[in-house]
Amino acid sequence: MNLIKPLTLILVFIITASAQQNPCPTASKFGPDDQIGNVNYITPAKTLAATKLVTTGKTYRLGIETNKDTPAYPPRTFAVTIVQPGQTGGGSLGPTKTTYNDDMIVGWAGVGTQLDGLGHIGIDGLYYNCNKASDFAMTDGLKKLGVEHVPAIATRGVLLDMAGYFNTDIVKEGTAFNRAEIEGAMKRQGIKSIEKGDVVLFYTGWLKLIGKDNKRFGSVAPGLGRDGAKFLASLEVAIIGADTWSFEVVPFEKDVGVFEVHQILIPLNGIHILENVNTEEMVRDQAWEFLFTLGAARITGGVQSIVNPIAIR
Amino acid sequence: MNLIKPLTLILVFIITASAQQNPCPTASKFGPDDQIGNVNYITPAKTLAATKLVTTGKTYRLGIETNKDTPAYPPRTFAVTIVQPGQTGGGSLGPTKTTYNDDMIVGWAGVGTQLDGLGHIGIDGLYYNCNKASDFAMTDGLKKLGVEHVPAIATRGVLLDMAGYFNTDIVKEGTAFNRAEIEGAMKRQGIKSIEKGDVVLFYTGWLKLIGKDNKRFGSVAPGLGRDGAKFLASLEVAIIGADTWSFEVVPFEKDVGVFEVHQILIPLNGIHILENVNTEEMVRDQAWEFLFTLGAARITGGVQSIVNPIAIR
Amino acid sequence: MNLIKPLTLILVFIITASAQQNPCPTASKFGPDDQIGNVNYITPAKTLAATKLVTTGKTYRLGIETNKDTPAYPPRTFAVTIVQPGQTGGGSLGPTKTTYNDDMIVGWAGVGTQLDGLGHIGIDGLYYNCNKASDFAMTDGLKKLGVEHVPAIATRGVLLDMAGYFNTDIVKEGTAFNRAEIEGAMKRQGIKSIEKGDVVLFYTGWLKLIGKDNKRFGSVAPGLGRDGAKFLASLEVAIIGADTWSFEVVPFEKDVGVFEVHQILIPLNGIHILENVNTEEMVRDQAWEFLFTLGAARITGGVQSIVNPIAIR
Amino acid sequence: MNLIKPLTLILVFIITASAQQNPCPTASKFGPDDQIGNVNYITPAKTLAATKLVTTGKTYRLGIETNKDTPAYPPRTFAVTIVQPGQTGGGSLGPTKTTYNDDMIVGWAGVGTQLDGLGHIGIDGLYYNCNKASDFAMTDGLKKLGVEHVPAIATRGVLLDMAGYFNTDIVKEGTAFNRAEIEGAMKRQGIKSIEKGDVVLFYTGWLKLIGKDNKRFGSVAPGLGRDGAKFLASLEVAIIGADTWSFEVVPFEKDVGVFEVHQILIPLNGIHILENVNTEEMVRDQAWEFLFTLGAARITGGVQSIVNPIAIR
Repeated sequence: MNLIKPLTLILVFIITASAQQNPCPTASKFGPDDQIGNVNYITPAKTLAATKLVTTGKTYRLGIETNKDTPAYPPRTFAVTIVQPGQTGGGSLGPTKTTYNDDMIVGWAGVGTQLDGLGHIGIDGLYYNCNKASDFAMTDGLKKLGVEHVPAIATRGVLLDMAGYFNTDIVKEGTAFNRAEIEGAMKRQGIKSIEKGDVVLFYTGWLKLIGKDNKRFGSVAPGLGRDGAKFLASLEVAIIGADTWSFEVVPFEKDVGVFEVHQILIPLNGIHILENVNTEEMVRDQAWEFLFTLGAARITGGVQSIVNPIAIR
Repeated sequence: MNLIKPLTLILVFIITASAQQNPCPTASKFGPDDQIGNVNYITPAKTLAATKLVTTGKTYRLGIETNKDTPAYPPRTFAVTIVQPGQTGGGSLGPTKTTYNDDMIVGWAGVGTQLDGLGHIGIDGLYYNCNKASDFAMTDGLKKLGVEHVPAIATRGVLLDMAGYFNTDIVKEGTAFNRAEIEGAMKRQGIKSIEKGDVVLFYTGWLKLIGKDNKRFGSVAPGLGRDGAKFLASLEVAIIGADTWSFEVVPFEKDVGVFEVHQILIPLNGIHILENVNTEEMVRDQAWEFLFTLGAARITGGVQSIVNPIAIR
Repeated sequence: MNLIKPLTLILVFIITASAQQNPCPTASKFGPDDQIGNVNYITPAKTLAATKLVTTGKTYRLGIETNKDTPAYPPRTFAVTIVQPGQTGGGSLGPTKTTYNDDMIVGWAGVGTQLDGLGHIGIDGLYYNCNKASDFAMTDGLKKLGVEHVPAIATRGVLLDMAGYFNTDIVKEGTAFNRAEIEGAMKRQGIKSIEKGDVVLFYTGWLKLIGKDNKRFGSVAPGLGRDGAKFLASLEVAIIGADTWSFEVVPFEKDVGVFEVHQILIPLNGIHILENVNTEEMVRDQAWEFLFTLGAARITGGVQSIVNPIAIR
Repeated sequence: MNLIKPLTLILVFIITASAQQNPCPTASKFGPDDQIGNVNYITPAKTLAATKLVTTGKTYRLGIETNKDTPAYPPRTFAVTIVQPGQTGGGSLGPTKTTYNDDMIVGWAGVGTQLDGLGHIGIDGLYYNCNKASDFAMTDGLKKLGVEHVPAIATRGVLLDMAGYFNTDIVKEGTAFNRAEIEGAMKRQGIKSIEKGDVVLFYTGWLKLIGKDNKRFGSVAPGLGRDGAKFLASLEVAIIGADTWSFEVVPFEKDVGVFEVHQILIPLNGIHILENVNTEEMVRDQAWEFLFTLGAARITGGVQSIVNPIAIR
C-alpha cells in the first residue's frame, strides 16, 4: 500500500487546485448563502402583478391524492393510520363527551403531487450552491436546502397544454418537450411570453393512466427535454411542473444522462420541480395564465414536500 | 344479567325515537353528502373579491417548522429520515453521475402548523354531518371527511391582534376570546366586519414560547372561548385559526367541556380549525385584511394536514 | 334526553352488583397481578426435564421471514429501510475507514411468525385477568399485558402432525382440530401425553401456500376448534401454535364466534398463541417431542412480537 | 482535469494488483457463499454438549426493554402504537364480542438488546465475505448478510464477570478487556476454557446507568479491546456480547480506529455481536457456564435484530 498514499495526496492537490481555478458549477447567482434559487425572483411586484391575472375567482386544486395505492418511484411507499388516543373501548373526554381521531403518517415525501426541493438532485454528490451531500445530507434531515426554506410562493403561472399541441388525449411516452414544442404550444394557446419568476406547468394527460395502467404510468412518460430545460432556465423561471411522475421525458433522450434534466434545473439553475400536478380541469377551462400559490409543509430538513398548489384565475 | 337486556332495548328505543324526532345535531346545512362545511361559502365571487385586497404583493409564510423538537400534543411525534437509494458507498446513476436524496416521514399529522379536518373532533362518536366514527374512522384511513376533500382555499383573511388588544407581548394563558374581545380587537384595528366565508386568525404571541418554555407552551394557552366560537359561527366564517397548539383557551372556561370549542366549530358548524399559525410578521406589518390561500396536502383519509398557508396583501 | 340518565344509573348499578356477585370471567388463577398466564407453569423443574428430551442436538428455526411480501391480516404492513448514517457520498469513520449499515423498521408486529401476547384479544373490551382495554390499551403502548413481561421460555414442545393424520400434504381449510383429532394425531405419532406447561404446535402444511396462493393462505385455514381449545386448556398447556396465519380454524365452526378460539385461550385461560410457526423440517425428521425455547423481543407495551422460536431435539 | 484520469487508472491498477495477490481480507473460511460466519461452528454435537450444562433448569431472560426512552445510538428512535382496527367507538366482532389490540412498530432495529448481523459493519464499504455495500446494501433491505439467515442458535455460553474481576459495581468507562483481563476473569471464576462455537458474554454492570445517567451510559463504556477481540477470534467463538451499548471499549484504545473492534469481529472474522445483554441476575447466581439460545426475528434484509436471548443452567 506504500504507493497509494503519495498518489492520493497528488490527486487531492490537483483537484483542489482545479477547484480554485474553476468556480463550483452549482454556485448560486444569489450568493453563497442562497438556498432557494430562482424563487428569489418572485418579488412583491411580481406577486402583485400576478394577482391582476385573476378575473373570475375560480380556484383549482392541483394536488392528486396520496395514499398506499398512489404509484410512486420505488421503494417509496405511503400509509396513514388512524387512532383514537385515550378512547379505547368507546371512551370520551369530559362532560361534552369529546371524541377525536388522530393520524400517523408513515411514508415517503415523494408520493403524490410533490415539490422537489433543491436538496433532491446532485451531480456526483455536489448539490445546489456548492453544497456537498457529505456535508449536509444527514440521516436525520438535510442541514441545508431543506424544504422548510421555501418561501410563500404567489406568482404568475403559465399552463402549456402539450396534449392539445400534439392533438391527443395523452401525449406518448418518450415525447420530449424542447424549445420548438414549448414555443409551439405557447403560440397555439396565445401565450405571449414566459417570464422571470414564472411557474410553468406542462399538461400531458398522463395522470389519466393512474388506476388504469400504473405500470405504464410509472415506468415512462412524456416530458421536458434537455434543450427545453436549458431554454426555460434561460428565461429564469422559478418553478417548472408537469402532470407526470418523472417530470422529464422517459426514456431519456439520446445522449442525455439519467435524470439529467433534473440536474440542469435543480443543482445547476436553482429551479424547483413539481411532479404529478393535476391541471386537467384548467385545460378544460383554458386557464392558461393565472395566479399560482404554493405553501409547502415546512418539514425541517425535508427533501421533498407533498403539496397541493392552488391556481386562481 | 337478565335485567340488562330489556333495559338496553328500552334505552335503544328511547334514543332511536329521539333521533327520529330531532334531526342529527351535526347535520350539514349543505346537504347530506357535504364533507367540507363552511368552506362551501368560498365562492369564486368571494375569491375574486379577496384578491382585490392585495395592494403590495408581499407574501407571508404562515407555517412553523415541523420536526422532532416541535412541541406537540402527546403522544404525537415526528421524524424525517434521509436516504440515498442505490448510492451506497458513493455510487451515482448514469454518465452525468446523478445522485439524489429522498426522505421518509414517520410522524403524526398533528405536529406543527396544522389544519384540523372535519373528521378530527366528534361528540360521543358523532362527527360532522351525522357521520359516526364506527362507520368512517377506519384504521387505514377515514372513509369520509378526510383532508383530501378540502378544496383549494383562496378567500379573505382577517387577523385579530389579541396581543395588541391586551397590550402585551404574549397573551396570558386562560384568557378567553369571546364576543367582547373579538369586537374590541376589530375596533382597535379598524376592521369593519367579519364576513361569511372569511378566515379569521388570532395572534397572541404564544409561539414565542417554543424553544423557551415548551412545557408552558404545550400545556395551556389563551384562545377562543365558547361564546366567541358561537359568535364567529353565527357569522358563518369558513376557517378559524390561532398561533397556539390548542386553538381554544386552556384551561377551559368554567363549565366548558374538554375541547368543547372544537366541538362547536368542527362537528356542529363545519368550521375548520388551524393551529400554530405564525402571524408574527403580519402583526408587525399591520396586515389585518388580506388574501388567504391554503392547499392542504391531499392525503387520502387523513384527519389533519401539516400546512403552510399563505397570506398576500 | 331526560329518561336516559336515570336508566344509565340503574344499568350501572345492575352491572356493578353483578360484577360483585360473579367473579370476572378472565380472572387469573395466578392472582390479581398476574400478566403471563400459563407460562407460570414453566418451572425450573419443567425446563430441566425438557432439556433431557435433547438427544441429537439438532436445532430447528421455526420462524418464517417477515417482509413487505409476507401475507398478513389487513391492514398490517411491513417494511425495512437501510441507511448509512454519516456516510453520504461514500464517507467512512476514522483511520480504519469504518462503514456501517443501520435499519429502520416500519410495520406491524403481527407480520410473519408471531407471538400473540395476553393483551391481544378480549371479550367486549375485557382482557386477561380482568383488565379493561380502556384502562391499559393506550395508544403509545399497553400499560399491562405487554410482551415485555413474557419470561424466558424453555419447556417441552410437542408437535402434532395434522397433515400426516389426515394423510395429506396440506390440510383443507375449515378442518377443525378438536379432541378426537388431537388424540388421534397423538396416537398415530406415539405421543403419550400433553402436559401442564407444554408448548403444543400443529403442523398442517399451510405455509406451503405462501407465494403460491397468498389469497387462499390468508383468508381461510385449518386449525384448532372450540372444543379442541377447551381440551388443551384443560391440560393446562402454556402456549399453542400452528403454521397458519389464523391459528384457529377459518371459516369458524358452526355457532362459534369470530376468533372465539382466541378468546378461549388468551383472555379466558391465559394461554399464549403462536402463528405461522414453520415446523416443516421437524415433520420430516419426525421430531415430535423436543426442547422448545422462545425469547420474544421485549418491546415495552407491545401486543405481539415477531418471533423465531427454537426447537432442539 | 487531464491529469486525474491517468492517475486514477494507475491507482485502480495498483489496488487491483494488490487484490489479486492478497485474497479479499474479509473472505470467509466457510466458502464464498457463507453468510453466517462462526455460527457455522455450532454443530448438533456442540448443541448437544451444551444442553448437558443445564443442571437446575433455571432460565434467564437476557433482553432489556425497547421503548422510546431506551438510550440508543443517534439518530435511532423507537415507538410502538396501539390500534383497535374496526372497533372505533367501542365496537366488537361477532356474537362473542371479540375485541383486539394490534401494534405498529416504528423504530430502528438497533434499540435495546440487539444482535449485530454480519451486514452491520464494514471496512471502507467492504463487508463480510468480500461483499461490497454497493452490491448488497439496498435501501429496501440487505440483499445479502441479512438477519434472516442467522440459524437457530443453541450453544455453550460463558459469562465473564468483569465487574467482579475489577472488584467494582460498574466497570469504569474506557476500561479495555484484553487477553490478560479475559484470562484473569476466567481464572477468578473457575472457567477452564473458551471454546470454538461458544457465546461469550461480558458483564460490567453498565446497564445500571440506564434511567440514572443516560448520557454517561450512551457516550462511553468499558468493553472489549483490540487485542482481546483478536484473542477471542483466535478461539473461534461464535458470538460475543456485552451489557453495554457499544460492546467495545469507548473511548477507543490508543491507536485503535473508530469501532475497529467491531471490524475485527464482524467483517474480518464472521463473529456476531450482542449489545445491551442483561446478565445481572446470572452474575448474582454465578451462572458462569450455561446453555445459550437465540432465535432472532427473521426480518428479511434486516441489519440488526432486537433480541431476547435465553440462558438456561
